[in-house]
Amino acid sequence: LDYQHVQVPFEITLWIMLASLAKIGFHLYNKLPSVVPESCLLIFVGLIMGGIIYGLNDKSPPVMDSDIFFLYLLPPIVLDAGYFMPSRPFFENIGTILLYAVVGTIWNVFGIGFSLYGICQVKAFRLQDVSLLHNLLFGSLIAAVDPVAVLAVFEEIHVNEKLHILVFGESLLNDAVTVVLYKLFRSFCEMPAIKSVDVFAGIGKFFVVGLGGVLVGLTFGMTAAFTTRFTKDIRVIEPLFVFLYSYLSYLTAEMFHLSGIVAIIACAMGMKRYVEANISLKSHTTVKYFMKMWSSVSDTLIFIFLGVSTIGENHEWNWPYICFTVIFCLIWRALGVLVLTFFVNRFHVNTITSKDQFIIAYGGLRGAICFSLVFLLPDFRRKKLFIAATTVVILFTVFVQGMTIRPLVDLLAVKRKRESAPTVGEQIHIRFLDHLLAGIEDISGHWGQYYWKDKLEYFNSKYLQKILLREYDQPKSSIVLLYEKLERKHAIELAEAGQLGHAPSHPSLLNNDRIVVTDKKLEDTLNPDVLENIQEILARNLYRIRRTGPAYNRHTLPGETEPVEHAKEILILRRKSL
Amino acid sequence: LDYQHVQVPFEITLWIMLASLAKIGFHLYNKLPSVVPESCLLIFVGLIMGGIIYGLNDKSPPVMDSDIFFLYLLPPIVLDAGYFMPSRPFFENIGTILLYAVVGTIWNVFGIGFSLYGICQVKAFRLQDVSLLHNLLFGSLIAAVDPVAVLAVFEEIHVNEKLHILVFGESLLNDAVTVVLYKLFRSFCEMPAIKSVDVFAGIGKFFVVGLGGVLVGLTFGMTAAFTTRFTKDIRVIEPLFVFLYSYLSYLTAEMFHLSGIVAIIACAMGMKRYVEANISLKSHTTVKYFMKMWSSVSDTLIFIFLGVSTIGENHEWNWPYICFTVIFCLIWRALGVLVLTFFVNRFHVNTITSKDQFIIAYGGLRGAICFSLVFLLPDFRRKKLFIAATTVVILFTVFVQGMTIRPLVDLLAVKRKRESAPTVGEQIHIRFLDHLLAGIEDISGHWGQYYWKDKLEYFNSKYLQKILLREYDQPKSSIVLLYEKLERKHAIELAEAGQLGHAPSHPSLLNNDRIVVTDKKLEDTLNPDVLENIQEILARNLYRIRRTGPAYNRHTLPGETEPVEHAKEILILRRKSL
Repeated sequence: LDYQHVQVPFEITLWIMLASLAKIGFHLYNKLPSVVPESCLLIFVGLIMGGIIYGLNDKSPPVMDSDIFFLYLLPPIVLDAGYFMPSRPFFENIGTILLYAVVGTIWNVFGIGFSLYGICQVKAFRLQDVSLLHNLLFGSLIAAVDPVAVLAVFEEIHVNEKLHILVFGESLLNDAVTVVLYKLFRSFCEMPAIKSVDVFAGIGKFFVVGLGGVLVGLTFGMTAAFTTRFTKDIRVIEPLFVFLYSYLSYLTAEMFHLSGIVAIIACAMGMKRYVEANISLKSHTTVKYFMKMWSSVSDTLIFIFLGVSTIGENHEWNWPYICFTVIFCLIWRALGVLVLTFFVNRFHVNTITSKDQFIIAYGGLRGAICFSLVFLLPDFRRKKLFIAATTVVILFTVFVQGMTIRPLVDLLAVKRKRESAPTVGEQIHIRFLDHLLAGIEDISGHWGQYYWKDKLEYFNSKYLQKILLREYDQPKSSIVLLYEKLERKHAIELAEAGQLGHAPSHPSLLNNDRIVVTDKKLEDTLNPDVLENIQEILARNLYRIRRTGPAYNRHTLPGETEPVEHAKEILILRRKSL
Repeated sequence: LDYQHVQVPFEITLWIMLASLAKIGFHLYNKLPSVVPESCLLIFVGLIMGGIIYGLNDKSPPVMDSDIFFLYLLPPIVLDAGYFMPSRPFFENIGTILLYAVVGTIWNVFGIGFSLYGICQVKAFRLQDVSLLHNLLFGSLIAAVDPVAVLAVFEEIHVNEKLHILVFGESLLNDAVTVVLYKLFRSFCEMPAIKSVDVFAGIGKFFVVGLGGVLVGLTFGMTAAFTTRFTKDIRVIEPLFVFLYSYLSYLTAEMFHLSGIVAIIACAMGMKRYVEANISLKSHTTVKYFMKMWSSVSDTLIFIFLGVSTIGENHEWNWPYICFTVIFCLIWRALGVLVLTFFVNRFHVNTITSKDQFIIAYGGLRGAICFSLVFLLPDFRRKKLFIAATTVVILFTVFVQGMTIRPLVDLLAVKRKRESAPTVGEQIHIRFLDHLLAGIEDISGHWGQYYWKDKLEYFNSKYLQKILLREYDQPKSSIVLLYEKLERKHAIELAEAGQLGHAPSHPSLLNNDRIVVTDKKLEDTLNPDVLENIQEILARNLYRIRRTGPAYNRHTLPGETEPVEHAKEILILRRKSL
C-alpha cells in the first residue's frame, strides 16, 4: 500500500465526492431542502464531520486554508455569478448597488468598529486590551455581506429581480471596499504611528482597487473573445479559454492587490456576448454546464469546510463581545439600508418599498469570506476571540436569518420573480422604448443611462464586434436569436417525442387527419397557439434574416441598409403569399 | 506585487494557456498539421521553450515531474481513450491484443535487455559496468509502446479499425506488464541475491496487477453507474461523478500497486453504457466534451514538457549504447510482431495482412511514460546514459516514425477506415448475425465469444440494468437509439437552417410548392432519400417503441412481450395506413 504517493489528489477527490454525495442525499428527500436551505444542511454535515475527526484524533480538525479558499474555491462561484449575471437589471440599478456596496459597507465597518470599541470600554467585560484599530479591523472583515451565502439562500426564495440584484450585486461589489479597508487597517495595526497622508492614500486606494479590477477583467475578457475567433478548427478546446482567461484575470488582480472578484465579474460579463457568438453550441453548453457544476461543488465544499473548521480549540469565548457583535451587525445594517434607501428613493420614480428594504437588511448574510479573512489576521492576543465572534455571526446569519427569510418573504408577500420568460412582444416593446428614451435624452441634452447605453452599443457594433467576432456579416438581433432558440428547443422536443416527421407547423396546409394526434402531443410541451403565431409572424418577416436596424437609429440613415436586396426580398415574400 | 501568493495556480494556468495557444497556432496554418504530426510540432515548441529557459537562467530547465505526469496528466488521456473505446472491435480482437501486450512486451523487454547486455561486453564501448539487471530494467521501461504517442499519430492517419485497435489496445494494456517488470527489476537491483521464489512471485504478480486493475475499475464503474441513478433532481453535478469515480479508480489502483491504466479503462468501459442512459443529454454532451478537452490539453502539455525536459545537462552521451538501443527497439519489435502474428493467423480466418504487420511494428512509438519511468529510476552511475538513450528513442520514434508513417500508409495502400457510419440496415444485419452465431455456438457446444457475449447480455438485462438504471421500463435497442439520434440531429439542423416550420418530411402530404425551396436546403445537409426511407420505415414500425426483442431470443419465449398491446398497436397502424 502506497498511500503517500496518491494522498493529495486522493483526498481532494474524496472531499469533492463527499460534497456531491451530500448534495444528492438532500435531494432524495424533497421536503428537506424546501424547509432548510442547503447551506445550513451542508454546514451541519461539516459539523458532524468535524466532530468525528475531533473525536477520532483528539485534536482540532484542519481549518479551511485561506489560500485554498481564495485561490481555488471562490473563483468558480464568482465566475458563475458574473457569467450568468442578468446584465439589464444590474446596469439599471448600478447606482443603487454601488451606493450600498461602497457607502453601505464603509458605514457598517465604522459603525460596528466604533460601537464595539465602546463595548470594550466597559470594565466589567474585561476587554480593555482590544484597541480601536483592532475593532475597526474586525469591523472591516465582519461588515461585508458574503456573495456565496447570499446566492445560496436567495436562489431558493425567488424574490423579484430588482430586489435580488440589489442584494446580490452589493455582496459582489463590496469586495473592493472590504479588500481596501481590511488591508488598510491591518497595515495601520503594524505601523507605529498613522499619518494623515496614509488615510488619504487609503481613500485613493478605493478607486485604484475597484477600477483596476474592472480594467484587468475587461482586458482579459476582450483577449478571451479575440482568442475564440480562431478556434473554428479545434472546437474541443473552446470552453477552456473561457475558464483560463477568467481565472487569469482573477489571479492577476490578486497579484496586484486589486479586487479579484470585481476583475473576474468584469471579465465574465465582458466576454460573454462575444464568446457566445464565436464558439459552437455544444461548446457553449459545456461552458455553462461546467460553470454551474464547478460553482455548485465549490459552494458545497465551502459550507462543509465552514462546518468542519468550526469544531476545534481555536475559540475564546466572551459573551458580551460576541453577543454585541451579532446585535451591532444587525442594527448597523438595518440603519444603513434605511438611510441609503431614503436618498435613493428621492431620486428614483421606481422606489424601493419598505418590504424590500426589510429583506435587503435581513438578507445581509455573512459567510466564508469573513471566515477566511479572520484566519488571515496577524497573530495577536485576542485573535481567538475574533475567530469565535466571526463563527457565531456566520452561523447566526446562515442558520437563523437563512432559515427564517423564506417564511418572512411569504408572510410579507414580497413581490416574487415572474415565472415566465418575457415574450417576443415584450422584448420588442422594451427595445423600442430604449431607443425612444435614448432619442429623448439626446434631444433634451441629458446624458442618462440610455444615452450611454446607446453610445456603447454604437461603439460595440462599429469597432468591437468587427475585431472580436469571427463572422461579422450579419449582427443578429436578440429577437432573432430568441426565435432561433425557440425553434431549436421546439425541434429537439419534437424529435424527442418522436413527432418530427409528422408535425409540420402549418396544419392548414395539410389535408390529413394524423395532425390531430400529433398536435395533441405538442400541446403538452408548448402552447401551440402562441408558438404558431410567433412562427407565423417571424417566418414571414424574418424569413431571410436582414439587418434588423430599428426605424430610428442615431448612427445610420434609414436608406443605408441595402435597399435593392430589401426590395427583392419583399418581392419574394409577396409572390409567395399570393 | 505579490507573486508568491498566486504563483502555483498562475504558472499552471499559463502553461495550459501556452499549450492551447500552440494548438490554435498550428491549426491556423492548415498545411502544417497535414504534413507534420501535432506531437512533433509540440515537442518542437517545447524544445524552443526549454532553450529559452536554459539561455536565460543558464541552468537546466525544470524536468517534467513523474508524479505530475502519472497523477495528473496521464489519467485524463487514458479515461478519454477508455470511454470512447470502440468496444466491439476491442472485444473481437481481445485475444490478439492481449498476446501482443503481454507476450510481445515481455519478448521486447528480454530481447532488448539481453542484447544490450551483449553490447556492454564489447570492451571498446567502455560499458562493462552496466550489469545485466540494469540492462533488463532499462529494457522494461523502453519496451512499452506509449498510448499517448500512438493515439496522437494514429488519430491522424485513419487506418482501418482492426489495425487501429490492435496497436492502440496493445499500447494501453501493456501497462500492466510494464508496471510489473519495471518494479520487479527495480527491486531485484536493490536485492543482494535473487531467489527463484522471487521470480515466481513476479510471474504471479502479472495476474494480480492486471486482473486486480480490472476489478478495481469495474467496482468503481458500477458504483458510478449506481450513483447516477439518483441525480435526477441535480442534473448539474452529473458529469462530476463520471470524472470522480474514474479518477478514484486510477488512484486506488496506483495505491495498491495495480495497473492504474487498466483500472481506469475498465471503469470507463464498464460505466459508459449505464451512465449514458441515466444522465441527461446535456450532461452527456458536457462529459464527452470535457473529456476530449481535458485529454487534448494533457496530451499537449505532455509533448511540450517532453521537449522542455530534453534540454539540459542530465544526459551522458555514448554513441554505441544509444544507437544500438534504437536499432534493437526496432528489430525486436519487428521480430515479435512477425512471430506472434504467425500464430495468431493460424487460428483466425480474418488474418492480419503483411502490410498490417508492418504498420503494427512501425507504429510502436515510445513516449512520455518511458520518459517518466527513466527519471523515477534509483540513482546510480549510469542513470544519465539511460536518460539520454530514452530521450533519443522517443525523439526518433516520434519524429522519424511518426512523420513517415503517413506517407508509408499511403504508399502501401493500407486499408483505410470507412468514412461513413454503419447504416441502420447494416446494424440490423450485424445484430442478426450475432444472435445466429450465439445460437450456433450454443447448439455446437462451443463456448466462443458469441456465447459469452450472449451470456453477459442476459446477465446485464436480468440483473445489472435493474440495479443500475433509473428507468428500467423499456430497454432501448441500439437501433432505436440510433434512430432517435438521427432524428434529433435532423431536427437541430432543420432548426438551425430556419426550416423547421416549413419542412415536413412527407412531401406527398402537401400540395404546396414551398417544399421545393426547402428541400433544396435539406439536400445540403443530409441525403434526403436515405433519411426519408429510414424515417418512413421506422415511423411505421417503431411509432410506439416497443420492446424490440429479436425473433430468436434464448431467454424469453416469443409470446412474452405483452401480446394485447402489441395487437392494439398494429391495429392503430393499420387504421392509419388505410
